[in-house]
Amino acid sequence: MPIQTQAKVHNFSAGPCVLPQEVFQQAAQAVLDWDGSGLSILEVSHRGKPFVAVMEKTMALVKELLGAPAHYQVVFLGGGASMGFHLVPQNFMKLGGKGAYAHTGEWSKRAIKEAKLAGEAVVVASSEDKNFNYIPKGFQVPNDVDYFHFTSNNTIYGTQYKQFPASPVPLICDMSSDIMSRPVNVADFAMIYAGAQKNMGPAGATMYLFDPDALGKTGRSLSPMMDLANHAAKESMYNTPPVFPVYVTMLTLEWLKRNGGVAGAEKRNAAKAGLLYAAIDRLPIFQGTTAKEDRSVMNATFVLKDSTLEPSFDELWKAAGISGIRGHRSVGGYRASMYNALPIESVQALVDVMEDFAKRNG
Amino acid sequence: MPIQTQAKVHNFSAGPCVLPQEVFQQAAQAVLDWDGSGLSILEVSHRGKPFVAVMEKTMALVKELLGAPAHYQVVFLGGGASMGFHLVPQNFMKLGGKGAYAHTGEWSKRAIKEAKLAGEAVVVASSEDKNFNYIPKGFQVPNDVDYFHFTSNNTIYGTQYKQFPASPVPLICDMSSDIMSRPVNVADFAMIYAGAQKNMGPAGATMYLFDPDALGKTGRSLSPMMDLANHAAKESMYNTPPVFPVYVTMLTLEWLKRNGGVAGAEKRNAAKAGLLYAAIDRLPIFQGTTAKEDRSVMNATFVLKDSTLEPSFDELWKAAGISGIRGHRSVGGYRASMYNALPIESVQALVDVMEDFAKRNG
Repeated sequence: MPIQTQAKVHNFSAGPCVLPQEVFQQAAQAVLDWDGSGLSILEVSHRGKPFVAVMEKTMALVKELLGAPAHYQVVFLGGGASMGFHLVPQNFMKLGGKGAYAHTGEWSKRAIKEAKLAGEAVVVASSEDKNFNYIPKGFQVPNDVDYFHFTSNNTIYGTQYKQFPASPVPLICDMSSDIMSRPVNVADFAMIYAGAQKNMGPAGATMYLFDPDALGKTGRSLSPMMDLANHAAKESMYNTPPVFPVYVTMLTLEWLKRNGGVAGAEKRNAAKAGLLYAAIDRLPIFQGTTAKEDRSVMNATFVLKDSTLEPSFDELWKAAGISGIRGHRSVGGYRASMYNALPIESVQALVDVMEDFAKRNG
Repeated sequence: MPIQTQAKVHNFSAGPCVLPQEVFQQAAQAVLDWDGSGLSILEVSHRGKPFVAVMEKTMALVKELLGAPAHYQVVFLGGGASMGFHLVPQNFMKLGGKGAYAHTGEWSKRAIKEAKLAGEAVVVASSEDKNFNYIPKGFQVPNDVDYFHFTSNNTIYGTQYKQFPASPVPLICDMSSDIMSRPVNVADFAMIYAGAQKNMGPAGATMYLFDPDALGKTGRSLSPMMDLANHAAKESMYNTPPVFPVYVTMLTLEWLKRNGGVAGAEKRNAAKAGLLYAAIDRLPIFQGTTAKEDRSVMNATFVLKDSTLEPSFDELWKAAGISGIRGHRSVGGYRASMYNALPIESVQALVDVMEDFAKRNG
């Protein structure tokens, strides 16, 4: 069967999402014949030298691209960030202890639920009063908790921390939807974790980057599967890892490195978001749904002021080869996700459609 | 970059392992452009109709191929069978309860460890006295336990249950390394689970097939990530599923269905194993390492009686394009894994090498 490719779609999907075209090429080649080995990447042992090298390189690229301190460790596991919500209290909350949380949307809600099952969750800040359309500021994290957890970017609502909160206790961040989109000072965090399926790779792998000195202080008897220290000691091979998702993550991080790293991504992402938010603000038939100062560079949420226009707008963007901009079912409207691999040409295509639609309905 | 393929290797890897060549072709096509959508399977939303259809079809194929009762449910999660070891007591062991286990190797050891962390593990049978080279028989499963757990096939040691144990309590089986290799009577089991990466697909997805009526009886407050009933209610989409591993699992199960289902696989597997074990028994320089009546059809373990011959034997099979027959580091010797997708031609190639080597060293 010959391999065929079509004209590409402008993919604004919220995740899993667009990845670099060259990564798709490399990944497809590896599925057929990996590095001239005569074997598909899908049929090789995870304990063979070639894949062990992939795992090591992927872990090293995470640390290099984020400028992590040398002693920090990286682990890749299955289960998505939802597994991370569970692992946070298991690995960081003392028996009978407490975790502090900022509540900024659906994902922090799930993280808080896990903390309550393991002990006590202290919600120190929330934007629930305005349906999560802003990022809480000026709150204090108490001293008598085991850690403070927040979600750096909220995909559903389109809000993002521009400045990370200060914390007197170990700081833990679910960075699933904006990891690798901008520089961060990793040393400020006890742990950063992220599902791969936005800026890092495909669905099926989740990355944990942590200070090993912050572990082992809870007094809990952990299952080896729940124990981040165990996974780190086994270099993410305590159980069979998600081989192909990790491989594609490596390819995606190599692409990022070739393209200016996280600083390069930050510049491109700012240009893309600037282009789209300017159109939202310029065209009076559209309206952004979040506080301007908290607008996410990754996920721009907006509505048509007159929602009866939606069907004809939908027809127009679909005809332009645009995909995935309907808002999350819990908020409605529109959401354009502009992850690292989305070309600015795709944003321009969307802006063109918005301009055209505004003119027709102006 | 043009897609290239090489002459194929005879892949006896213990898992991840050989899958059908046509599955690699279909999977590579989907990585570049899935079903003419203009999108890679790696960049589509798991909640979009096309992937929801994949998940539904994969779940239906599991039930159809195994002839599962209509009310049984299927869930796909990350984390491998090691996550399954953890989920078994969480979902089936009462608070203050017990699980019974047959101990037949490394994987049952890990399963037992998880049960001990959750409550009490009663080991009702063990083959540890002979380094797990046989399957315990004639043991009784007590009535006062919440379930009985066993491992149908032991990849490392090359043993396999030919007849499943009877149990007065819910029967749970880790079938990771021989699922879909032979017919089973699913109704006898409260749950069958299996990492996909042997007979079903690539690494990164694990399948749970269970009787929902057997759940919800433990009195435990489960995390939603640990709750099989929650995952079933959400059709494996409580969190982002391992999209590509599930897709390739669907392709592999479709291939199995086109090729006579599990009954067809059983016949082909018997022919392959028969061919190899006959050579092991016929050639006096080789020796099988397990009790004959418990020999695994999936993983044949054997040694050279004179282990000093290993380097020259290794040279010979490597030159013949054979890969992955070194034994597990904990037992040494050789292990030829002959999963569903391994062609009998590969087994013949190995037997030819063994004959040749025996002649040279006879």
